[in-house]
Amino acid sequence: MTEAEFIAALRTLPLHPGAHDLRDDAATLTIGGETLVLTHDSIAEGVHYKPGTDPADVAWKLVAVNLSDLAAKGAEPIGVLIGATLSDHRFIHGLREVLETYSVPLLGGDTIAVTPAVFGCTAIGRASHVPRRTGARPGDALWVTGQIGAAYRDFASNGPAYLRPTPRLAEGRALAPHVTAMMDVSDGLLLDARRMAEASHCTAEISLAAIPFAPGTTDRLAAASWGDDYELLFAAPPGFMPPVPATRIGTCTTAGALPLLVDGAAPPARLGYEHR
Amino acid sequence: MTEAEFIAALRTLPLHPGAHDLRDDAATLTIGGETLVLTHDSIAEGVHYKPGTDPADVAWKLVAVNLSDLAAKGAEPIGVLIGATLSDHRFIHGLREVLETYSVPLLGGDTIAVTPAVFGCTAIGRASHVPRRTGARPGDALWVTGQIGAAYRDFASNGPAYLRPTPRLAEGRALAPHVTAMMDVSDGLLLDARRMAEASHCTAEISLAAIPFAPGTTDRLAAASWGDDYELLFAAPPGFMPPVPATRIGTCTTAGALPLLVDGAAPPARLGYEHR
Repeated sequence: MTEAEFIAALRTLPLHPGAHDLRDDAATLTIGGETLVLTHDSIAEGVHYKPGTDPADVAWKLVAVNLSDLAAKGAEPIGVLIGATLSDHRFIHGLREVLETYSVPLLGGDTIAVTPAVFGCTAIGRASHVPRRTGARPGDALWVTGQIGAAYRDFASNGPAYLRPTPRLAEGRALAPHVTAMMDVSDGLLLDARRMAEASHCTAEISLAAIPFAPGTTDRLAAASWGDDYELLFAAPPGFMPPVPATRIGTCTTAGALPLLVDGAAPPARLGYEHR
Repeated sequence: MTEAEFIAALRTLPLHPGAHDLRDDAATLTIGGETLVLTHDSIAEGVHYKPGTDPADVAWKLVAVNLSDLAAKGAEPIGVLIGATLSDHRFIHGLREVLETYSVPLLGGDTIAVTPAVFGCTAIGRASHVPRRTGARPGDALWVTGQIGAAYRDFASNGPAYLRPTPRLAEGRALAPHVTAMMDVSDGLLLDARRMAEASHCTAEISLAAIPFAPGTTDRLAAASWGDDYELLFAAPPGFMPPVPATRIGTCTTAGALPLLVDGAAPPARLGYEHR
């Protein structure tokens, strides 16, 4: 089974209404009048980071990618549970850095011993407005926070933009009440934009020249198809001025033959990262 | 670092009060006047199950061991998030069986591709009384539900007691309001009894002859040191009659030189499973 087939099969299982048909970054749970946001992402040695990577960077990335999903849903983190492969003091050091940086306490988890190492994290947050991927409407502008392609640029050198992503928590909370759809850019800007368009039943028309590429980006199409950016992609009504730094990269239009157009044309077949 | 050293290092991180100093089966979170119970356990091929095991059994065990932690805290499941290694239709089938058997919906999760396979699960439940491991008092009786050693017996043949544990959800909810301490038996009855005694600052005195061993148990000490039973171990005041089938296996006494005595003597050094 491919990843897409596996996820399609998971959708046939008994799903919680807050699972949103497994089509969003995170689940929601209404408890005692409050809305919780829950997300789980794993990272594996040799898949999400290179063998030999400093365990401090692994711990940072593990927590940061999960906080990024909370950010995309406008949530304030409550805590994280960590499924750790038995590691060393550097892992503890990196975990302390990321937890302290984002004021997130550890709630629990477990430890196993396995090679290659795999780490899981469940992040829990609370939110008042939870934007979905599904709400973008024809006419909405498409925006992205920060820059795209820094992780792609830093991948070869195992540099900081690749190893230590910044979850856009404050930006997510500021944007959530105003946007029609929001998600984080984890698998590639173009792939994620297509996913938002498909979920919202519209077409995303993106201008490559409008994308705020990081300094040093040489192959723009590759950078927009790489992933690991952990910026926020969002749709908002035409007149909306974002309260945080963001760049308009395109427009949402009535669903056409394709869910994604790049500079008005069909994009290349491989848009981003999918597990096989 | 050993598992114990790693967990000790995790305790130096910023912890949520509901993490209970990482000394319990699960974390608790009070949201809008309700108490949530959260737990995360991972299972890995070659560690928690044998290579070649039917993925349906892997899915069952993954969810069941997490529901067992909810059971130990008297919680009713709300949902699970699954961190899956890309698998096949048998995995989906087993996941459906366990979710339907215990009426637990899927909330979310993620999929990665890694060899050997590792699966994580976060289970979330709600509870009114949450027994901790810490509340056993001298004079309390020590009890265990069900039988001990069936998983040990079935390990060699990859039999059902090893592959398909039964989380004691109904028993846990019935017991929770009455017990002084409760936990599930996942790493070995003797090791887990010692952990409860240490957490409660008392000594657990256990009679090997009193333990309800499964039919076919030959080496009783090995069976009590094996794990994978997923029964509930609990302490309750002397006159307590459990509302569910359970067997009294010993008594909690004032803390002595050792946290655990088996038939009045020091137990063997290796009591159960610890990751190294």
